[in-house]
Amino acid sequence: MSTRPIFVVAGVGNGSGTGAATARIFAKAGYNVALIARNGDFLKTFADDIKADGGEAHAFPIESYAGPSIQDAFAAIKTQWPSSPLRVALFNTAYGAWKPFMQVTQKEIQESVDTNIVAAFAFAHEVIAAFQAFDPDQGSGTRGTLLFTGAGSSLKTSDTNAVLAAGKTGVRALAMGLAKEFGKDDIHVAHVIIDGTIVTDRTRQAFPAEKLENLNTRLSPSSIGNSYMYLVNQDKSAWTWELDLRPAHEQW
Amino acid sequence: MSTRPIFVVAGVGNGSGTGAATARIFAKAGYNVALIARNGDFLKTFADDIKADGGEAHAFPIESYAGPSIQDAFAAIKTQWPSSPLRVALFNTAYGAWKPFMQVTQKEIQESVDTNIVAAFAFAHEVIAAFQAFDPDQGSGTRGTLLFTGAGSSLKTSDTNAVLAAGKTGVRALAMGLAKEFGKDDIHVAHVIIDGTIVTDRTRQAFPAEKLENLNTRLSPSSIGNSYMYLVNQDKSAWTWELDLRPAHEQW
Amino acid sequence: MSTRPIFVVAGVGNGSGTGAATARIFAKAGYNVALIARNGDFLKTFADDIKADGGEAHAFPIESYAGPSIQDAFAAIKTQWPSSPLRVALFNTAYGAWKPFMQVTQKEIQESVDTNIVAAFAFAHEVIAAFQAFDPDQGSGTRGTLLFTGAGSSLKTSDTNAVLAAGKTGVRALAMGLAKEFGKDDIHVAHVIIDGTIVTDRTRQAFPAEKLENLNTRLSPSSIGNSYMYLVNQDKSAWTWELDLRPAHEQW
Amino acid sequence: MSTRPIFVVAGVGNGSGTGAATARIFAKAGYNVALIARNGDFLKTFADDIKADGGEAHAFPIESYAGPSIQDAFAAIKTQWPSSPLRVALFNTAYGAWKPFMQVTQKEIQESVDTNIVAAFAFAHEVIAAFQAFDPDQGSGTRGTLLFTGAGSSLKTSDTNAVLAAGKTGVRALAMGLAKEFGKDDIHVAHVIIDGTIVTDRTRQAFPAEKLENLNTRLSPSSIGNSYMYLVNQDKSAWTWELDLRPAHEQW
Repeated sequence: MSTRPIFVVAGVGNGSGTGAATARIFAKAGYNVALIARNGDFLKTFADDIKADGGEAHAFPIESYAGPSIQDAFAAIKTQWPSSPLRVALFNTAYGAWKPFMQVTQKEIQESVDTNIVAAFAFAHEVIAAFQAFDPDQGSGTRGTLLFTGAGSSLKTSDTNAVLAAGKTGVRALAMGLAKEFGKDDIHVAHVIIDGTIVTDRTRQAFPAEKLENLNTRLSPSSIGNSYMYLVNQDKSAWTWELDLRPAHEQW
Repeated sequence: MSTRPIFVVAGVGNGSGTGAATARIFAKAGYNVALIARNGDFLKTFADDIKADGGEAHAFPIESYAGPSIQDAFAAIKTQWPSSPLRVALFNTAYGAWKPFMQVTQKEIQESVDTNIVAAFAFAHEVIAAFQAFDPDQGSGTRGTLLFTGAGSSLKTSDTNAVLAAGKTGVRALAMGLAKEFGKDDIHVAHVIIDGTIVTDRTRQAFPAEKLENLNTRLSPSSIGNSYMYLVNQDKSAWTWELDLRPAHEQW
Repeated sequence: MSTRPIFVVAGVGNGSGTGAATARIFAKAGYNVALIARNGDFLKTFADDIKADGGEAHAFPIESYAGPSIQDAFAAIKTQWPSSPLRVALFNTAYGAWKPFMQVTQKEIQESVDTNIVAAFAFAHEVIAAFQAFDPDQGSGTRGTLLFTGAGSSLKTSDTNAVLAAGKTGVRALAMGLAKEFGKDDIHVAHVIIDGTIVTDRTRQAFPAEKLENLNTRLSPSSIGNSYMYLVNQDKSAWTWELDLRPAHEQW
Repeated sequence: MSTRPIFVVAGVGNGSGTGAATARIFAKAGYNVALIARNGDFLKTFADDIKADGGEAHAFPIESYAGPSIQDAFAAIKTQWPSSPLRVALFNTAYGAWKPFMQVTQKEIQESVDTNIVAAFAFAHEVIAAFQAFDPDQGSGTRGTLLFTGAGSSLKTSDTNAVLAAGKTGVRALAMGLAKEFGKDDIHVAHVIIDGTIVTDRTRQAFPAEKLENLNTRLSPSSIGNSYMYLVNQDKSAWTWELDLRPAHEQW
């Protein structure tokens, strides 16, 4: 049984992106890492990988991002580490194909709002309840930090990404409300606009190597994770609600 | 059989609000008015009311704002007025209770995203298809105008209205994408931020009379409808994507 | 001596742009038109032109947009039409060359803030004082409407227009403060984002004719003026603080 | 002669605020600290204070924030540390009284735009030139970081702070343009929204002690300075253009 703080992340992808890189960073910093995603087989492999590196992690695969599945995952986390306080949570899912509007199917928009917005409400509900179940950290005075991974489409829609933007703006709206409602309860909520191409296994295939290998034009998942750690470590005198992250040479 | 243009509105409430007032204004201006809402009994009464005033209107009740219901309604509209071009459409639904976040149920957030966002995608799909089925109006050069009723929460979330804000920001994201994608096809998409209390039968009960009877502190549904008509009549040289409407004495 | 309401515009250019077109529209609607600009010779010719069209107008040339010059102009307007209430004012100046930042001179940025921001404060001071000197209009209940012509750079800066953007964002900040402070005094303040190329004598030379002659891709000054008239005629139940105007086929 | 990097700050106040706290932090991190402000006597005392703490600092008092004074200061900095590269610059001035608009004098608005905007352009010009005079840092690949201290009024105007907002929005517009233009030259420009009361000698007198001593409701200058250091240390894969800082219990 451990009394180390818990870090939970929903949305770990295939282990090469933001959620996974952030999980590794928090594992190294001494957190018990709870991994939530829909890909159960991969998730266990990734948890083993973190443990092989000396960290503590556990896979909590879910069937879908519907409320009951997320509630089950949080119940299992509590069983796994009963005396550990949840201190950091990252909601990192994204869904939404870019395509001309008339080609968008009802299934696609439903999946976008369910995976982004409805899941974010369910996740946040469990996270806030878990934060409230423990006193604030004695050192920082903070009960916990809830982070949301946003995108350029969290702020504005281009002519072909309404599906993603509808989901992402809804998540941002939730995050803003939570930041305003729970700050006084010593709960820090922050939203991070990732504006650019992140290097993952998927983008490695889609983009030319010279772009992806260039630190100036692509986002490194671990750089994003380091920014999340910065937000978690902000003292209560100066909390950030929103920041953007963008490669140095990105045009915007 | 009529060749008058069609105005369609989704979200007519009980007949005392924005959707209904706008329907009356477009009926008076010579449009065939198609009324879509979930309240079938009322809707027919309201259509009769418009006809008694000399207008042309028809009720198209739907069981829900799910895609198939909306598709059925548009098919019925086409059957009703087969040679009339759809020229103006107003998406006017809103759902979302204001309450502390931990009291929000999964059902409430699901209903908000379904009634606001998923329904807006389905409605917009039918509207754009109908616009594209006719040549642009010979006088204005405009194929049609698609209007969305927004709210203060379309732009920012207060500490207790994340449910409504998640839905409203998603609708705004859709509207922005449509405006950018379809302007070049002579389709005008506009989003209107209604920031304040609208006088309806419901608010008449909830607010003191002295506030509601005061033109300076409440929004009149017909004033909103007149602004929608202004947007429809804008020439192609100067289209508005977004405007706000607010009582003169409103604090903001 | 006339009791017709006064419309005053600062920034008339060479008579082919927004300020001039709006002046013609308000002259036709029965306003006494007060023309303020730095080009004295042209201004008198333009006033005569409006009069030849059956309107009432007078030129109030100023040496600069410094406070004392603007105060003198308003004193002269009062002398010209002593019993007429000022009801509508348009601040329409713009200054700011687009160029790489390291080429911007201190003179250019000083001129931008002086002509845009400092002049706007001086103009608004005289306008509000004039509005407050008369009771609200008996019909509308509105004391007066103060309009500001904004631009895309009122909201965001591209990589080479910081000079204009610094001035334009400052004017917008003023307009927002005025709208909030003076709404309760029945004074309507509105800011209009003009996002695109306006057809003027100057742009006629700079752009290919096929673009300028195309109603879909350029802003007509009189269309902008008609939108200003719409804002002036809004009833107090639903005032707009900000709207954008953009050609139908503009990419944004 | 030193080859340590230079940190320059304009706007040090009386030594108890953001500029001074940030200067101490960068002095401790090994920077040569160049202090620019209008208060010459204090400035030298503050430089001595940093030196007594083991840092390296020098006072560069200016008569005003007009361009020539700022140019002189940068020339003197170069003379002081001829072989040191400028790597970090902070523009930290603020001017603007909160008052009803009709009480605002022309002198006040002129001072606001001159001290905020015109000075920011002059400062940025010297900073960019100094950044471009040296190769990027071998470790980070970054040529330099230019930071701007913003405020809530950088984004929106309340009903009585148009003077400050006009200046602050103009500075933000400049910062955005610089970030977009110079990112590709490995120059990082960031704007920080300080939203709340900062603890300084002045606010210590204006606010009740229980508020100021409470880490949850006031901004500590050194917390702000730590965030500036975080921005300076961001790697080029993930630069932030804008973030906000706000006490945990602040209502917003």
